Order: sequence, then structure tokens, then C-alpha cells
Amino acid sequence: MHPSEAEFANEAFYMAFNRRDVAAMEALWSARHEAVCLHPGWPALIGREAIMDSWRSIFANPDQPPVTFHSASPCRMGDGMVAVVCYEVVAGSTMVATNLFIEEDGQPKLVLHQSGICARPPPMAEETSLDVN
Amino acid sequence: MHPSEAEFANEAFYMAFNRRDVAAMEALWSARHEAVCLHPGWPALIGREAIMDSWRSIFANPDQPPVTFHSASPCRMGDGMVAVVCYEVVAGSTMVATNLFIEEDGQPKLVLHQSGICARPPPMAEETSLDVN
Repeated sequence: MHPSEAEFANEAFYMAFNRRDVAAMEALWSARHEAVCLHPGWPALIGREAIMDSWRSIFANPDQPPVTFHSASPCRMGDGMVAVVCYEVVAGSTMVATNLFIEEDGQPKLVLHQSGICARPPPMAEETSLDVN
Repeated sequence: MHPSEAEFANEAFYMAFNRRDVAAMEALWSARHEAVCLHPGWPALIGREAIMDSWRSIFANPDQPPVTFHSASPCRMGDGMVAVVCYEVVAGSTMVATNLFIEEDGQPKLVLHQSGICARPPPMAEETSLDVN
């Protein structure tokens, strides 16, 4: 997997989030590996079923604010794995997030998402515009 | 890598932390892959040099409290990669952490450590005793 493919999948992840698109989120997450998802403040969710339940719950919340991200850095982590580190901005708060992608059938698939409050974020170089229309 | 090897390396990581052992920490982190370290609240540290500088800084802080961990769960994430999710307890606060290990020369090496506040930790089944003497 080229790092740019992981960056593209990273953007697709945040678009799926803002569009509250369960099908897109299901397609983005690995179906073959044991995935882990750590939403800010939540206990760890391990396994596809628990993770998809969490997205359905988040998407069903009318008060869930949209997310933007900036400063995405892809890091190669072994054969066919790329971690994208980026900063999420949600309702004025900045989180630092890791999204780890593994290649499955030539496609980058999420096996890990972890996001947590970042008290000292770097300056925002450019914010990625996520078209949700 | 067997998941139990990653669990053992995970325990070695927290022992190195409590012993303020820079050499042990250097041996635990990957020298071949681009590693990522996200301490609670910090911006992302990418690359071995920035990560080792952070450990030296943390170990030099006399006010750094020790850490214990509990409920470690190893998750296989592809060929030779295991993520260990666990809960860290530091000065009465609970963090949820992911420690991602990749196999190098038959040894599990850290490529990712991310720790952040967990507002709703699970009950502590058993706390791992870390002998720092």
C-alpha cells in the first residue's frame, strides 16, 4: 500500500463520519483482522461488531458535531501497513488520532482507530475540507 | 509472534517506564520502522529520535508518578503484528493505551504507543505487579 492510499482512506473515514454513513464505515473497516477502536474517553472496543455498534450509536446522536482534520502524516509500519496520524477538530477541541490501515485485497482497511484529547496541538497548516453534501 | 510474546513485551515496556530505564526502552522500540508515540495530551511524536528524547525527558522528571496497568488484551493485526490494548493507572487516573508490536529478528518491537484519558474504564480485574527493584 502506498502511503497516499492510506491518506485517501483516512479522508474517506472522516467523510463517512460526517455523512453518518454506516455502509461506508463498514466498507472501511477490516473484516479479516481483529480491529480495535478507541473513541475519546470511551473504553476500548475490540472486534468488528462492537465497533460498528458504536458508529451506529454515534451516527444516531443528533447532537454529534462534525469533525475536520489537519496535519495528516502517514507512517509505514511493516508490510502493507500504514498508520496515519492526524489532528481532529470537533466542536472547538483538538484530538490527536491514529488510524492504522492494513491492505486487504489491494484496499486499505482500518484495523485501529484511536483518538484522544491533545492539549498542545501543532498549528493547523491546512484543514481538509470534507464535502458532506 | 504469539500474542503472549506481545503481552510479555507490553509488561517489559511498563517495567522500563517505572525503572526509568532508557536502554530497556531503546531495546523495546523498533529500529527499522517509522514509529509513533502519543503520550496523553502531547502532540504526536514520529520517529525514533523524537520518541527517545521524550522518554529521557519523562524519566528525568522527579515528579513523574509510576504506572500500573490492567486488563491487557492482545489483538492480532496482520502478519507478525499484535496490538495490546490495556488500561494504565497513573496517579489515580485511568488511561486506555494501545501498544502495537511488530516482529523484528524474532522479537516483538514497539511501533506505536498511544495513551489517553479513559473516562469510563472497565472494572480492574487484576492489576499487574511491576517489580521495579
